Amino acid sequence: MSLKDIQQQPGVAAQPPAETAGFVFNHTMLRVKDIVKSLDFYTRVLGFRLLDQRDFPEAQFSLYFLALLPAGTQVPTDDAERRVWMAGIPGVLELTHNHGTETQEGPVYHDGNSDPRGFGHICVSVPDIHAACARFDALEVPYQKRLEDGRMKHLAFIKDPDGYWVEIISNTPLAG
Amino acid sequence: MSLKDIQQQPGVAAQPPAETAGFVFNHTMLRVKDIVKSLDFYTRVLGFRLLDQRDFPEAQFSLYFLALLPAGTQVPTDDAERRVWMAGIPGVLELTHNHGTETQEGPVYHDGNSDPRGFGHICVSVPDIHAACARFDALEVPYQKRLEDGRMKHLAFIKDPDGYWVEIISNTPLAG
Repeated sequence: MSLKDIQQQPGVAAQPPAETAGFVFNHTMLRVKDIVKSLDFYTRVLGFRLLDQRDFPEAQFSLYFLALLPAGTQVPTDDAERRVWMAGIPGVLELTHNHGTETQEGPVYHDGNSDPRGFGHICVSVPDIHAACARFDALEVPYQKRLEDGRMKHLAFIKDPDGYWVEIISNTPLAG
Repeated sequence: MSLKDIQQQPGVAAQPPAETAGFVFNHTMLRVKDIVKSLDFYTRVLGFRLLDQRDFPEAQFSLYFLALLPAGTQVPTDDAERRVWMAGIPGVLELTHNHGTETQEGPVYHDGNSDPRGFGHICVSVPDIHAACARFDALEVPYQKRLEDGRMKHLAFIKDPDGYWVEIISNTPLAG
């Protein structure tokens, strides 16, 4: 569908309102059972960097903020400066760890893809989807849908340690 | 917590693996009941632009991709070029509309914040949080938490048409 047709869908504002200048879709928050497993998955498997951690000991939870940063990004080391910087970039992932959930048996959180449904997935795009999936295989990452499964051969879904779906797509033109 | 201490948390990879170069946290997907209401909310209230729509008539669903773009961003008008470009940017919101849900009575989707919990919220950061919230008031946007509620006076949560929580934070330094 052409960009012009898309912009004329019912409900779509003709222009972003001037009052929304500087608005940034900053982050998505997911609750996780075992923060060590989640940090390992998001940093080692997917290449996210941990940018901030906030502990709320009385309320027994901690927040972790991660992002996939372009090579060469300079992360401010000053804490106050880093927080303002981090609030201004898109593509941050916030993980909430309610202390103690890691000792519970079995899954603690709901992935949103069975009833009651809602949230569906997050998506990481990659320059070489075949190399990325071969590496996920080597790392024994579980899949919801392999590249070769089903009719959509150009995308995969892997699962994070809580079972949340992470779609993998290409961010470069795919060969015919 | 200092950046150095943060990077030494258990589970955190010392460096992003070289194989993850070029990975982008591209999007988050939410299912929505009434796409016209959701497009109106995300484009008119929050300033997102609709960038792509994909219809799957046999499977009775459509996908809508939106982003909050910095002023002056040139969106490619060529469809193939736009899709590759869109896959390479962070901060895209994908809305899934299962056709016909808009005619159902009452809420169709689960916001993730009551049992079974999982996904928590998305977050939009803004340059002037007081002006942004005054505007949401004027637009009669429902709140989960107003700026002045509770102990966290520097953030708010509004609700989208499905009841998903949208956190509002500042992306500029707040006055003392």
